[in-house]
Amino acid sequence: MSHKANAPKINSIAELPPSEAKWIELKKINWTDQAGRERVWEVAARKTRGRSGVDAVAMATIILHPSRPPSTILVLQYRPPVDVTTVEFPAGLIDADESPEAAAVRELREETGYTGRVLDISPTIANDPGMSTANMQLVVVEVRLGEGDEEPEQHLDSGEHIQRVVVPLDELYEKLLTYSRQERTMVSAKLFHWAAGLHFAKKQLLQL
Amino acid sequence: MSHKANAPKINSIAELPPSEAKWIELKKINWTDQAGRERVWEVAARKTRGRSGVDAVAMATIILHPSRPPSTILVLQYRPPVDVTTVEFPAGLIDADESPEAAAVRELREETGYTGRVLDISPTIANDPGMSTANMQLVVVEVRLGEGDEEPEQHLDSGEHIQRVVVPLDELYEKLLTYSRQERTMVSAKLFHWAAGLHFAKKQLLQL
Repeated sequence: MSHKANAPKINSIAELPPSEAKWIELKKINWTDQAGRERVWEVAARKTRGRSGVDAVAMATIILHPSRPPSTILVLQYRPPVDVTTVEFPAGLIDADESPEAAAVRELREETGYTGRVLDISPTIANDPGMSTANMQLVVVEVRLGEGDEEPEQHLDSGEHIQRVVVPLDELYEKLLTYSRQERTMVSAKLFHWAAGLHFAKKQLLQL
Repeated sequence: MSHKANAPKINSIAELPPSEAKWIELKKINWTDQAGRERVWEVAARKTRGRSGVDAVAMATIILHPSRPPSTILVLQYRPPVDVTTVEFPAGLIDADESPEAAAVRELREETGYTGRVLDISPTIANDPGMSTANMQLVVVEVRLGEGDEEPEQHLDSGEHIQRVVVPLDELYEKLLTYSRQERTMVSAKLFHWAAGLHFAKKQLLQL
């Protein structure tokens, strides 16, 4: 794949009439609160949720190598909603008849080339529950490499432009701060929270 | 505040016409990708973003007490978008002319009663960048208590029903798994990621 020098760019932003929307929709929820009062809440939702009842998976990948420090893999891609390059865990929507575990292994292979073993899968968790129905599961995937293993090839869909970066876990938090200082680059909140938890624990444990 | 036994409930869900939406909106982004191809991306956005350019803050609060283990504080509240009680870090939208730091201290006091000192504030990070423009900053707030300090009173707005729970950091990850097993309860993805990073670090460091 040849990455051309063309930077992606937004040409225009328009109102999206509900009749045209294919991927997401707005809903008005009429609800009764704890005090018996009728209220309205506005919510955004994905229209693509399948049988699993979960929209997406993201993968906290742990790469183990005989002579390199334990690392994780991040993906960088231009994201039109925020009009910048984001730094995220590999992630993807779960297909209609797919299990979250299968989606995790498939998406990790597509976006990064690596094949791993699912070590742990989170409960269903809410992406942004004040605004959206979107939910996900966080999957911990272990990738064990041999000394001479070469970097595998990505299996991107046509039109996908995703850069992968392997980062030692010990450097992850600082690396995310560095990315955040770059022009037109933003870290995803979920990845940042994971790294901040890791960073906090290490600081706290090293004080003991 | 008396919590009545009434469980909040959804009465109906309807399409939200753009002309009626006050808080969020759908947009159609026309963009040109890396290969020069014109494409469309559908996105949800908050309509309330103020001068800071950031929608919201969430607070990773560290409560230090002379004779109790370091703890954090979580908030539980019914969230109509996901129709369950969510477990989250205290959080809130930043007012139009407010700084993120000021919003953090204000929201923490309103939702939990505690007053703290801002130790750290993250870069602006993207909540769900495949679907939404929403962004936030994660603020680490330290609360130092004395031996005999009593639990402070919340300062909730009328119509807010928020329960606070103090959880020792060492028990946080397990506690979130326990909440996730309860009926009609869901943990927020950002809080879960923070706890999972903390948990992973402790497991990893204890193996050394």
